[in-house]
Amino acid sequence: MSDYITHDKNGVSVGRVQKKYFTFAEPPDEMVLESGAKLGPVTIAYETCGELNRDAGNAILVCHALSGDSHVAGYYATDDSKPGWWDIMAGPGKGIDTDKYFVVCSNIIGSCMGSVGPPTMNPGTGKPYGSDFPMVTIGDMVDAQKALMEHLGIRKILAVIGGSVGGMQVLQWCVRYPEMVVAAIPLATTTKHSALAIAFNEVARQAIMSDPDWSNGDYYDGTKPATGLAVARMIGNITYLSDESMRLKFGRRLQNKSDFSYNFDADFQVESYLRHQGAKFVERFDANSFLFITRAADYFDLEKQHGEGSLVKAFANARAKFLVVSFTSDWLYPTYQSKAMVKAMKKNDLDVSFCEIKAQWGHDAFLLPNERLDIMMKGFLNRVWRETA
Amino acid sequence: MSDYITHDKNGVSVGRVQKKYFTFAEPPDEMVLESGAKLGPVTIAYETCGELNRDAGNAILVCHALSGDSHVAGYYATDDSKPGWWDIMAGPGKGIDTDKYFVVCSNIIGSCMGSVGPPTMNPGTGKPYGSDFPMVTIGDMVDAQKALMEHLGIRKILAVIGGSVGGMQVLQWCVRYPEMVVAAIPLATTTKHSALAIAFNEVARQAIMSDPDWSNGDYYDGTKPATGLAVARMIGNITYLSDESMRLKFGRRLQNKSDFSYNFDADFQVESYLRHQGAKFVERFDANSFLFITRAADYFDLEKQHGEGSLVKAFANARAKFLVVSFTSDWLYPTYQSKAMVKAMKKNDLDVSFCEIKAQWGHDAFLLPNERLDIMMKGFLNRVWRETA
Repeated sequence: MSDYITHDKNGVSVGRVQKKYFTFAEPPDEMVLESGAKLGPVTIAYETCGELNRDAGNAILVCHALSGDSHVAGYYATDDSKPGWWDIMAGPGKGIDTDKYFVVCSNIIGSCMGSVGPPTMNPGTGKPYGSDFPMVTIGDMVDAQKALMEHLGIRKILAVIGGSVGGMQVLQWCVRYPEMVVAAIPLATTTKHSALAIAFNEVARQAIMSDPDWSNGDYYDGTKPATGLAVARMIGNITYLSDESMRLKFGRRLQNKSDFSYNFDADFQVESYLRHQGAKFVERFDANSFLFITRAADYFDLEKQHGEGSLVKAFANARAKFLVVSFTSDWLYPTYQSKAMVKAMKKNDLDVSFCEIKAQWGHDAFLLPNERLDIMMKGFLNRVWRETA
Repeated sequence: MSDYITHDKNGVSVGRVQKKYFTFAEPPDEMVLESGAKLGPVTIAYETCGELNRDAGNAILVCHALSGDSHVAGYYATDDSKPGWWDIMAGPGKGIDTDKYFVVCSNIIGSCMGSVGPPTMNPGTGKPYGSDFPMVTIGDMVDAQKALMEHLGIRKILAVIGGSVGGMQVLQWCVRYPEMVVAAIPLATTTKHSALAIAFNEVARQAIMSDPDWSNGDYYDGTKPATGLAVARMIGNITYLSDESMRLKFGRRLQNKSDFSYNFDADFQVESYLRHQGAKFVERFDANSFLFITRAADYFDLEKQHGEGSLVKAFANARAKFLVVSFTSDWLYPTYQSKAMVKAMKKNDLDVSFCEIKAQWGHDAFLLPNERLDIMMKGFLNRVWRETA
C-alpha cells in the first residue's frame, strides 16, 4: 500500500490518493472462472482519484488496455517523470473530472501490475503460478472488478470507460451487469477480434513461446524470455500506429547516419524506435501476462457469449447510455466494427451516441491528446450525471 | 542443371526447358556491389520458357518476389504436385504467352534458391558465407540479371515484369538500364518502402536475429534458426493478406473444436494457418536470405538513389512503356504509392498505363488468378510487341 500525490495541470499537488490492494475469493471460496477453473485468493491492485459521494453515485470505473495498470492519473511522487497512463484525460477539470467524479482504476487479473497474474505466488505450490495460472477471460476480469466495486460500496457505476482491451471490459460490464452500469464509453474497441487482430496476437505469442527462455511459462527463477517479449511488443507497436502516423513520425529518416550501414544495425529511425520500445517493455511487463491478456482479448466475442451468435441479442439486456468512439486511422479495430455495435445497440432502442474521430495516429489515438475527445467525453458525462441526479 | 517439362492448361507436356546456372565475376574480376564490397564468383540460377527469336526481341524477364525462385512456370516432372510460382500467368496462351515470348526468370542474388547467397560456399573460406555474405541491393540483383541477359544474347528486353520486391527490380531496370527495357510492368510495388513496411521487415528480422540458433548468421553446420524464421514468415504472411481477406478466409472459425481450449493451442483457424505457413517456410527458405532480401527491399529508394530526392528526376532517363498495377486491398504497398510513381512517369512524358484492380486478397492479389490482370497484361504486351515489330 503506497500513498501517491495527484497534480493539476500546473504540477500543483491537489490531493493524496492511495494505491490499494483488495483480496477476495480466499480458498475454499475461490473465484470460478469462465473456463471452469478456480482461482483464489484473488488480489486486485487499484487506485482512486476524487471523492466518492455519500450515495456512491459519482463513481467512474476506468478499464485499462493490454499493458496498462491501475495508475491512471497523477504522480506517485513529486519527482516522478511520468504521470498515470491517462493523466491527460483524468484529473481535476479534465475530460473525466476528478473534482466531480470518483475515479477507480484497477489492474486486470492476469496482468503483472499488482493484481493476481502468472508472476504471482501460487499458494498451492509456494512458487509463481507461471504455466499453472488459469486462463482468464474479459468476463473474469470484469467479475473481479465487480467484486472490487462491491467492496467499495458502489452499486451503480456512473460510467465505465475504456479503450481497446479496456473497451472490451466496458462492453462486457454492460451486458453482464446491466443493472450496475448507468453509462459506458467504449473507445477504439470491438465486440470481437477480427482474424487480422487474432493473427497479430498469435504471431506475438509465437515470438514469446519460441524464445527458449520462456521455458513453457516457468521462467521466474531463471532468465526471462526478454527477446521474445521484445519482438511481441514490436509487433503490437506497429498495430497501434498507422501507415500515415509512421510516415509522419519516421518516414525513411536515418538514425544518426548519413548513409546505410549495409549491415543489420538500426539504420532507420523506425527500426531504432521499435527496438527501443521492445527493450523498454521488457523492463516493465511480464511475458506470460502478455500471453494471457492477448488470449483473453482474442477469446472475447460478445455475440457468441451473450447473443447466441447475434450482436443485437447480445445487447438485449443492456441498459447503459453509450458513447461509442472510433478513430479513422485505427486499423486494428476499424470504424466498421464500432458501427456494427452501434447498430446493434440502436436496434435495442438504447441511448447511443457515436463518433468517429478523424485522427492519424492509429489505434493509439485514444491515448493521445485530442480536444474533440475531451469535449465529447466531458459533455457526455455531464449529461449522464445531470440525468441521473 | 536439370531438365523440366512445361504443361499446358490440360496438363499436356508442351516442351522441355532447362534449369541452368550462369556463373560470372570470377575472381579477380568480382562484381562490385553498391556497398563497395566485392562478390565473386556470382552464380545465377535461371529458367526459360518459350523460344528466343532470331533477333532476340521477344524476351521477357520475370522478376520474383522475396521468397520466390527461378521456377516461374511449368512442372519439373509430370508427377510434381505444384507448378512454378506464376504458372497461372506464364505459359502457352496465358497472360505472358510462352508461345510468343521467351520468358526468363532468374533467382535473385542473396537468395537461397540456386543463386549465390548466404548459404553458398564462400571460396575464400571453404565454408558457407553466412555472416560474411555482403549486403546486396535491388540494384545489385538487377546488375546480376543484366549479366545473365548479356550472356543469353539479349540486348533489349521486350518487357521486365514483377510484383512486390520483383516490382522494385522492374523499376530499377528502367532507371538503371533504360536503353535495354522496351516495356515494364511493376505490380503491387513501390519506389520506396514506407516506414510501416520497414517496420514489419525489421520486426521479422528481429525475430530471426533473436533466435539463439541464428548464431550471428553462422548456423550452417548446426541447428537452423527455425523458430525465428517461422515467426518472421508469419509476420510477412499477415502483411500479404488483408482485413477483408482474412475475415473471408478464416473469420473467427475454430480449428476442429467446438469450444476454446483455454490454453495456447491453435484454437482459431487463422492461428493454425499461420503456424503451418511458418513451419512450411522453414523447410524451403534460408533465414539469412530472408534478412538480406528484406534489407535490400528496405534500402530500395528510387528517388534517393536516382533522383536526388525527386521521383520525377529518378525517371528522367527512363524510356520504357509502363503498365503500373496496384490492388485495392494491398496495404503493404497501397495504391497511393503506385499513383505517385505514375505521376512521376507522366511528368517525364512516358507512355504509362495505370490500373488499380479491385481485389480483396491484399498484397498477395498479384499472385492469384485474376482475369482482369490476365487480359490487361496480355493486351499491354500485345501492343508493345506490335509497336516494336
